[in-house]
Amino acid sequence: MTYHKTPIRYGMVGGGKTGGIGKVHRTSAEMFDHFKLCAGVFSSNPEVSLESALEWGVSPDRNYRTYEEMTEKESARQDGIQAVVITTPNHLHGGPIKSSISRGIHVICDKPLTISLDEAREIQDIVQRSDRVFMMTYCYSGYPLVREAKARIQRGDIGQIKMIKVEYPQGHLATPIEETGLKTFEWRTDPARSGQGGTIADIGSHAFHMLRYVSGLKVRSVSAELSSFIKTRRVDDNAIVNLRMENDAIGLIWVSQAAIGHENSLNFKVYGDQGSLEWSHTDPSKIWLYQLNKPKQLITRGSAETTFEAQRATHVPAGHPEGYYEAFANLYLEAARAIYSVDNRKAIPSEVDYPGIEDGFEGMAFIDASLESAKRNGAWVDL
Amino acid sequence: MTYHKTPIRYGMVGGGKTGGIGKVHRTSAEMFDHFKLCAGVFSSNPEVSLESALEWGVSPDRNYRTYEEMTEKESARQDGIQAVVITTPNHLHGGPIKSSISRGIHVICDKPLTISLDEAREIQDIVQRSDRVFMMTYCYSGYPLVREAKARIQRGDIGQIKMIKVEYPQGHLATPIEETGLKTFEWRTDPARSGQGGTIADIGSHAFHMLRYVSGLKVRSVSAELSSFIKTRRVDDNAIVNLRMENDAIGLIWVSQAAIGHENSLNFKVYGDQGSLEWSHTDPSKIWLYQLNKPKQLITRGSAETTFEAQRATHVPAGHPEGYYEAFANLYLEAARAIYSVDNRKAIPSEVDYPGIEDGFEGMAFIDASLESAKRNGAWVDL
Amino acid sequence: MTYHKTPIRYGMVGGGKTGGIGKVHRTSAEMFDHFKLCAGVFSSNPEVSLESALEWGVSPDRNYRTYEEMTEKESARQDGIQAVVITTPNHLHGGPIKSSISRGIHVICDKPLTISLDEAREIQDIVQRSDRVFMMTYCYSGYPLVREAKARIQRGDIGQIKMIKVEYPQGHLATPIEETGLKTFEWRTDPARSGQGGTIADIGSHAFHMLRYVSGLKVRSVSAELSSFIKTRRVDDNAIVNLRMENDAIGLIWVSQAAIGHENSLNFKVYGDQGSLEWSHTDPSKIWLYQLNKPKQLITRGSAETTFEAQRATHVPAGHPEGYYEAFANLYLEAARAIYSVDNRKAIPSEVDYPGIEDGFEGMAFIDASLESAKRNGAWVDL
Amino acid sequence: MTYHKTPIRYGMVGGGKTGGIGKVHRTSAEMFDHFKLCAGVFSSNPEVSLESALEWGVSPDRNYRTYEEMTEKESARQDGIQAVVITTPNHLHGGPIKSSISRGIHVICDKPLTISLDEAREIQDIVQRSDRVFMMTYCYSGYPLVREAKARIQRGDIGQIKMIKVEYPQGHLATPIEETGLKTFEWRTDPARSGQGGTIADIGSHAFHMLRYVSGLKVRSVSAELSSFIKTRRVDDNAIVNLRMENDAIGLIWVSQAAIGHENSLNFKVYGDQGSLEWSHTDPSKIWLYQLNKPKQLITRGSAETTFEAQRATHVPAGHPEGYYEAFANLYLEAARAIYSVDNRKAIPSEVDYPGIEDGFEGMAFIDASLESAKRNGAWVDL
Repeated sequence: MTYHKTPIRYGMVGGGKTGGIGKVHRTSAEMFDHFKLCAGVFSSNPEVSLESALEWGVSPDRNYRTYEEMTEKESARQDGIQAVVITTPNHLHGGPIKSSISRGIHVICDKPLTISLDEAREIQDIVQRSDRVFMMTYCYSGYPLVREAKARIQRGDIGQIKMIKVEYPQGHLATPIEETGLKTFEWRTDPARSGQGGTIADIGSHAFHMLRYVSGLKVRSVSAELSSFIKTRRVDDNAIVNLRMENDAIGLIWVSQAAIGHENSLNFKVYGDQGSLEWSHTDPSKIWLYQLNKPKQLITRGSAETTFEAQRATHVPAGHPEGYYEAFANLYLEAARAIYSVDNRKAIPSEVDYPGIEDGFEGMAFIDASLESAKRNGAWVDL
Repeated sequence: MTYHKTPIRYGMVGGGKTGGIGKVHRTSAEMFDHFKLCAGVFSSNPEVSLESALEWGVSPDRNYRTYEEMTEKESARQDGIQAVVITTPNHLHGGPIKSSISRGIHVICDKPLTISLDEAREIQDIVQRSDRVFMMTYCYSGYPLVREAKARIQRGDIGQIKMIKVEYPQGHLATPIEETGLKTFEWRTDPARSGQGGTIADIGSHAFHMLRYVSGLKVRSVSAELSSFIKTRRVDDNAIVNLRMENDAIGLIWVSQAAIGHENSLNFKVYGDQGSLEWSHTDPSKIWLYQLNKPKQLITRGSAETTFEAQRATHVPAGHPEGYYEAFANLYLEAARAIYSVDNRKAIPSEVDYPGIEDGFEGMAFIDASLESAKRNGAWVDL
Repeated sequence: MTYHKTPIRYGMVGGGKTGGIGKVHRTSAEMFDHFKLCAGVFSSNPEVSLESALEWGVSPDRNYRTYEEMTEKESARQDGIQAVVITTPNHLHGGPIKSSISRGIHVICDKPLTISLDEAREIQDIVQRSDRVFMMTYCYSGYPLVREAKARIQRGDIGQIKMIKVEYPQGHLATPIEETGLKTFEWRTDPARSGQGGTIADIGSHAFHMLRYVSGLKVRSVSAELSSFIKTRRVDDNAIVNLRMENDAIGLIWVSQAAIGHENSLNFKVYGDQGSLEWSHTDPSKIWLYQLNKPKQLITRGSAETTFEAQRATHVPAGHPEGYYEAFANLYLEAARAIYSVDNRKAIPSEVDYPGIEDGFEGMAFIDASLESAKRNGAWVDL
Repeated sequence: MTYHKTPIRYGMVGGGKTGGIGKVHRTSAEMFDHFKLCAGVFSSNPEVSLESALEWGVSPDRNYRTYEEMTEKESARQDGIQAVVITTPNHLHGGPIKSSISRGIHVICDKPLTISLDEAREIQDIVQRSDRVFMMTYCYSGYPLVREAKARIQRGDIGQIKMIKVEYPQGHLATPIEETGLKTFEWRTDPARSGQGGTIADIGSHAFHMLRYVSGLKVRSVSAELSSFIKTRRVDDNAIVNLRMENDAIGLIWVSQAAIGHENSLNFKVYGDQGSLEWSHTDPSKIWLYQLNKPKQLITRGSAETTFEAQRATHVPAGHPEGYYEAFANLYLEAARAIYSVDNRKAIPSEVDYPGIEDGFEGMAFIDASLESAKRNGAWVDL
C-alpha cells in the first residue's frame, strides 16, 4: 500500500523532542508521504515545545501553548490541520479529543483511550455522534502478518476458534525504575496520571486489542490475577487474565513489565478445531500455520501464498525485514485513506482497516473489568 | 552418570507388547545396564502377556496371571525381583503398589499416582511407613537441562522467584479420537479408569510436578478453568490453572491435548527478581538464562559451564543430541542407585534425585483441587 | 542517530515509479528528514519520469530528460541539488557519476559500481581527485548489529580472524524468469547491461563488501566456481568463491539466486582464535557471540551491552524490530553527515561510516578476478 | 523398527572403559536387544581390558590379548561371536578387519576405513570377495529425518539436484589441545596413527558420506583448501572442498574442528530445480522442505507425513526427542537384520540400509583426493 495523494496536514499534542514516542509517530506518519506535520503543542514545557517545532520544520506561530488554542486557531485557517495526533499521558487524552472533534478535526490517539471507564463512555459518545475519523494507535495490528493471521482465520483456515492465547511480556520494570525519577516511568506507575491499572492498562490494552482483532470474537467476562512484583510499586506490573468469549471460545492473556529477559515479546496463538496459527513480535514477518493432518507451514511476508490483506500492507520484497516503523506507518496509511475519503465526501473503502473508538472503549472496559475481578479475588466479571 | 553394579532385577505390571509405554520403560530401564527384566504380568490378555515374556527373554514360569501371584512367588525366590514397574491404567496402580510394598518389593509407578485423593492418601501412608524405594516416573525431570535449571535457581542465578509458567500442549486429542475405539485413548477419556480429570490428570500432573521440581516452592491454592474442546468428550482436554505459591510467587499452568500443532511441547519459564530462565522440551538440551544487565546466555548440555547436577545426567558429548529415552533412563539410574543403597543397607547418596511418593500425592492433590475449583467457577481452592 | 539539519537536496537518476528500487532509496533517504528530493531523471520513458516527478512533489521543470541536463541546470541554481542518487542498470552508472562529480555534485550510487574494471578504475580516479562525497549503497552495512559485529571484532572479542564465511542465497532466479519479459530480470541477466557477472556481480558484490567490512582484512586472491543452474541463462546464477586474505585468514563466499527456499538470506560467520560471531539478515537485530570457555551469548539491538557503533544506528527501543528501510536510512544518514560537513567546510567526523569509492572499486576487482578464476577452472587469481 | 530375534553375539576391538566411544557403540548396539557383547580386546592395556570385560559382563576367558587370538578362539566356539566391532585408532582398523573376515566373522568398523588408500583398496577387495556383512558406522545416516530427506529426494520432491552443501563444524580443536597430552586428541592429530588427513579424515569422511548418502550422486572430482588454524598442528583442522558431481550437480563441503562456538553442527542443504531441503544435527528431528510456489514446510519425526523410511527408524512418538544413541542404534538394527539374514541363509530385505565397504572405500578416496588437491594449490583432482 503506497499513498499518492497530497499529505494530510496534522498537529501533535505531546510527543516533544525530549521523549521517544514523538519520533515514532512522526516518522511513521510521514515515511510514505501520507501525513505532514504543520502544528503542535509538543510539550507542557514551552521551551521544549518551541525547540521541537523548530527542529521539525513547524512554523513558530503554529507552535501553540494549549490544545484549545491549537484547535481554535487551526480550524480557522484555510490550510489548518486536518488531524491531530495525541501522545500525552493517558489522563490528558480526553481534553484534546473533545476539543478536536468539536472543531472538526480528525483524531489519532495513543492507547489506552483514557483513565476511567466513565470518561471513555463520554468520549465514545462524542466520537460516534460526529463524522470525524478516530483512530487508536494499537500499532501491532499494522503488521502484515498479523493481518494475514486475521484474514486466514476469517476464511476458515483453522476452523472454529476454541482458544486464543496472547502474551505480552516486557522486562523494563523488573526493578523499581520509577524511583530513579525517569519521567516516562514515573507517570506510567502513577495511578493519578496512568489510571488504576499499570501494566494491565499500558500493554494489557494492546494484548486485548490483539486478541479481539485476530479472533474477531467478543469477550463476555474476565477473571484476573494482578500482581506487583516490585512491592513498592503503586500499580500492577504483571497480569494474568482468563477470558470467556463468544461461541464458547476461551482466552488467556498474560502481560508483564517485570519479566526479565523479554524486550517486547507480544505474541499470540490461536487454536481452532481444524488448525492453529501463531505469530510473535520477536519475528514479526512470519506466521506458523498448523492444520490437521498437514505438514507444518511457515508463511512469510511477501511470499506468493500471502493474502491480499497482508500484501497491501507490505512495502519491501520477501526476505527484506520490515519493522515497527513500517507497522506503525501502516496504521497511518489506513487513517490517511479514511481521512482523505471523508474530507472528499467519499465512502471509506471497505478494505481500510484501523482500530476505532469502539476498540478504544472496549479496551477501557477490559481494564476496568480486570481491575474489578482482581479486587474480588479473581471472580468472573462481565465486560 | 553410568551404573556399574549388578543390574536390579525387576518385574512389570502392564506394558505388554501391544502398547507403546512398555518399550519406553524397558529400554530406559536397561539401556545403561542398571535394570534387568525378570518377571511380569504384562497384560490382562494372557496370550499377549506370554508373548511379551517370550519376546523379552522372561522365563515363561515367571510370566504371571496376577500381580498378587507375582509378588508372592517372586518374593519367595532367592533371585526374585527387587522392584516392580507399574504401567497400567491409573485405576490399576493402587493394587500392585500395595501388594509389592507388603512383600518388600521396591516400586516404580507411572503417573498420576491413582484416580482418587483418598486412595492416594492411603498409598502414601503405606509407602511412608515402609522402607522401600518408591519412584513416580515424572520423566521430564530426568532431562539434564531441567536439572541445570533447578540447580541454578537453587544457587540464586535468578534471585527470588516471582512467577513460574509451565505449558504442556499436545494436539492428539483435537478430534474425538476416542470414538474410533483406540484403546489408549478410550481409557484415558473414561472417568472410571482415568479419574475425573482428563488432561489435567494425564499431563497436568507432569506440568505440576515440573513447576514444583524446578521452583522448589510449595503451592498454596489454585484457580482452574477446565474445558472440553470436543463437546462429546467426558473429561477435560484443556486446562488453565492459576497458582498461588510460597513467598508470594505466582504460577500459571496451561495444558491441552486438543491444541493442534503441538506434539509434546512441555516448557517452562521462571521469572525471578534478578533474572529468568527458560526450558522447552522441543529443544531439551538448552536453557536460556537472562540476568539483569547481562547478555542473554544460552546454556547447552555438555558445555563447560553446566552444573554438576546436569553433568551427572549427561551421557554423550556436547552437540550430540540426547532424547526421551536418555531422560527416562536417568530416572531409572537414580532409582537403581537408591535401591542398591537400600538393599545393601547403605544411606542413599545425597545427590540421588527422583520423584517420590510425596510428589505422587501432591500431584493427586493438584488434580483434585483443580477439579474442585473448576466446579466452583474458578474459585481459589487450597491444596 | 537522528539528523537535525536542513535536509540535503538531491536528485535521482533512475528509480521511477514503475520500478521498486526508487521507493527504497527515496523512503530511506527521507524517513529521518535528512534528504529531500528536488529533481530527477526518473526514467528513460519521459511519461514515466514526469508522472514520477508529479507524484513525488518534484516541480515539473526540475524533471529532466537527461542526467547531463540535470547536472548542468541544477548546478547553476542557487537551490540546486547537492547530491545525486543513481539507481540505473549497472552499465549506466558511469555517465551520471562523472557528470555529477564534474559539476560539484555529491554522488550516491547503487552497487556494483559499473560493468567493467577499466571503467571502475577511471571512475575511482575521478572521484579520488575530487573532494565530493561518494557513497556506494552497500546497504547491509547499515544494520546496527552488523556494525556491532565489526566493532567487536576490532576491539578483539574473537581474537585474530582465521576464517570468514559469507553466504547470500536467494531463490527468485530458480526458474528462467528472464524469459517472461520482466524488465528487472531481463537486464540483470544480460551481460551487455549487467556485466559479464550475473549473481557474482549482483549480490556477490554485497557479499564481498560484507566480508571486507566486517573483517577489515584485505583479500589477496580468489578461486571461483561459477555455475548457471538454468542452462539457458547467459550469466552465472550461483557462485562459490574461496578467498585468501591478509594474516593467513581464509574466506568462503557462496552466493546464489537459484537456491529455492531462500528469500534474501545474507549471513556471515567469523571465526577467530578466541571466539566467533554470527549474523544473519533473516534475523538482523541479533548477533551470536561465542567465546572460548564462556556461555554462548546473544546480543540484541538496543540492549545495554551493545557498542556505541550499534547504538548510534539504532532508532527504536530493544524488542521493536527495525528493517531494511532503517538499515538503508542509516547509510543515508552517514552520507548526510559527510555532505553536511563538506558543504560547510568542516572535517567529516571520525565515526561517520559509509562505503566509498574504494569499496566500489574493490567490488569490481572481486567480480573481475572471480570471472577470471572461473574461466581458468578455479585457478587462484590475485585481486 | 524393533528387533525381535535372538541378539547377535559380538566382540569389540578397542572401546575400553577409559575412552568414550566404547559406551556409544555398546549402548547403541544393545539398547533394542539386537546385539549382545560376549568377547573383546578392549584395550592395549591388559588391565583396562580386563576391567572393561568384568564391568560389562564379559567372561574373563573371553577377554583376549590380541584380535588374532579373539578371532581364532571365538570362531572355534559353538557360541562364538558372530560379529566384531572395531573402534581402534584408524591405523589399527585393517588388521582386525582382515582377521575377522578370514574367520567368517561379520565386521562393524568405525570411520574412516583406514589411513591409506592402498590399504583401503586391499580391504575392499577382501570384503567384496567374502560373504560377510561389513558396516561402516557413518552414524549420522541413522537419523530418521536424514532418511526422510534421502527418500524425498529419491521420489522427486525437489526435482533434479543442482547443488548440495554439507557443513560439519566443531570447535574442540580451536586450541592446541593435543599438546596437553589427552590421548584422544593426540592420536587424531598424529599423521602416523590417524593418516595424513586431520579434520578432512576425521569428520570430512562423515560429511562426504552424508553428501553421497542424501544426494545419491557420484562425485567426479574435488578441489580442496586445507588449513591448520593452529600453527603447530601437524594435520589440517579446517577444510573447504568444492565438488563436481554427476548430472552437473556441484557440491560444497566445509568441515572444521577449530570453529569456536560449534559443538557438533553437521548440516546439509540440497538444492534442486523444483525445491530444496535442509537438515541439521543441532535439531535432528526436523527437515525443512521448500518447493516452488508452495508454503515452507517443516517435516517432523513421527508426524503423519513422514515416509516409510523415516518411520521404520523412529522409536518414540512425535514430539519426544530422539538422539545420538537412537540414530547409532538404527545402524546397528540394520546390521543386525543383515547379519541375521546372512546367518540364516536368507536374502537381506531390500529396505535394509547401512553404509558398506564401498562407502568406506569412497571415503578414503575422498580424503586422498582432497589431500592431493590441497598439495596442488586447489587443482581439481578426480576421485
